[in-house]
Amino acid sequence: MVFYFCTMSKEDLIFGVYPVLEAIKSKVTLHKLYVQKGSTNSKINEIVELLENSDVSISHVPQEKLDKLTRSNHQGIVAQSSPITFNSIEEIVESALGKKAAPLFLVLDQISDVRNFGAMIRTAECTAVDGIIIQKKGGAPVSGDTVKTSAGAIFKIPIVKVDHIKDAIFYLQGSGINVVAATEKADQRIYDIDLTGPVALVMGSEGKGVSKSILNLVDSKAALPVLGKINSLNVSVACGAILYEIVRQRTS
Amino acid sequence: MVFYFCTMSKEDLIFGVYPVLEAIKSKVTLHKLYVQKGSTNSKINEIVELLENSDVSISHVPQEKLDKLTRSNHQGIVAQSSPITFNSIEEIVESALGKKAAPLFLVLDQISDVRNFGAMIRTAECTAVDGIIIQKKGGAPVSGDTVKTSAGAIFKIPIVKVDHIKDAIFYLQGSGINVVAATEKADQRIYDIDLTGPVALVMGSEGKGVSKSILNLVDSKAALPVLGKINSLNVSVACGAILYEIVRQRTS
Repeated sequence: MVFYFCTMSKEDLIFGVYPVLEAIKSKVTLHKLYVQKGSTNSKINEIVELLENSDVSISHVPQEKLDKLTRSNHQGIVAQSSPITFNSIEEIVESALGKKAAPLFLVLDQISDVRNFGAMIRTAECTAVDGIIIQKKGGAPVSGDTVKTSAGAIFKIPIVKVDHIKDAIFYLQGSGINVVAATEKADQRIYDIDLTGPVALVMGSEGKGVSKSILNLVDSKAALPVLGKINSLNVSVACGAILYEIVRQRTS
Repeated sequence: MVFYFCTMSKEDLIFGVYPVLEAIKSKVTLHKLYVQKGSTNSKINEIVELLENSDVSISHVPQEKLDKLTRSNHQGIVAQSSPITFNSIEEIVESALGKKAAPLFLVLDQISDVRNFGAMIRTAECTAVDGIIIQKKGGAPVSGDTVKTSAGAIFKIPIVKVDHIKDAIFYLQGSGINVVAATEKADQRIYDIDLTGPVALVMGSEGKGVSKSILNLVDSKAALPVLGKINSLNVSVACGAILYEIVRQRTS
């Protein structure tokens, strides 16, 4: 899948063998790497090997494509840096615990719709969430559409990409954070849980909700009461209602 | 603008002069009327005149278009009935007041995005809202997309289309219903208002919020606290957070 950041600009492009190598060494978050098809440059092959098992998507393209990306001397390699900074879970938990007694995290288990994803990032930013944790694979990509639907909020809130949500939950629990899953399969209502301490809220996918294997791990499960006949709240709306219940409890 | 209901099926079509006349007499809610271009049938002209100042959109189309809509003998006229029943404000207020002491209404002031509109209908259905009031002009149409994005909730909740939101507010207030507008321009938080009595919640458009002229009319204004740097909650998320605060107050 090809996706461009809507904020993609000349400044996000790094071109030339040494600049790209330097960016990698400096841990600049790269999003995409364009390499000239059939290149025999050993340094380029070295970079491709370096990034092969990373999150960076690598495309082998004709020279014309690279020429279109930049008029400068690209030497057969152009990298696109990501304007979104990804953090590690250790960083966001440590930083939040250092700043406040009751941090708040949002864990998204396979949200596939980019508009829902964007709306949830917006809401998280408005409700003082300290970081959003998503899984590397399976959910909506962090793309230009996410930037757009989040109304730019994605630049204001730390995002963590983990290999497995499960490991993130273990880490959060080990750090003394109460992991609460939103699920209709809960006996207690969200209003009946004390959410004033350190909390990580887990929201599940549009179709299936929070995965069963994750429901087995969390500290508590809670539901929003559904008073109608159709049991189908939009996930970003449900997430907003719960995050605002946390705000209410914490500011009352 | 042409829009089709996604549920449009042969059953939603009424064709032939007398069936269409009969449908009008029986107060079947019509959505669209197709009339053969240049028709000189006096009964057809009578129907067009009958519906000219109604909400029904009238299209004058070539015979081929009508032949495509139905293989039956259409006599130059095909009407499409609306699967959505619209109610009058009097009906929904009277019915709700007869059923419960504290009815809840949702008034949408120019919501233009159909996905937001649909999500709000879903949330309203889940939070026991007794009716949704929209303005005939200016907002997202009640279209097939609305049916889809509301996940069918639109069939479960009464919808009222009014000429002017203002008049609806006067009517609600005259019926003893407390009209509360959600606006960031409020001094009090939604959590500090008693929402356990009869309430109509007014939500404003994505870009501009609730119109100034309407803010001047309402009984109270309330805000969701915004704790981040970006002051831009998605309107359907904000609506959900407030409707759920009402549920919380009413069920606690």
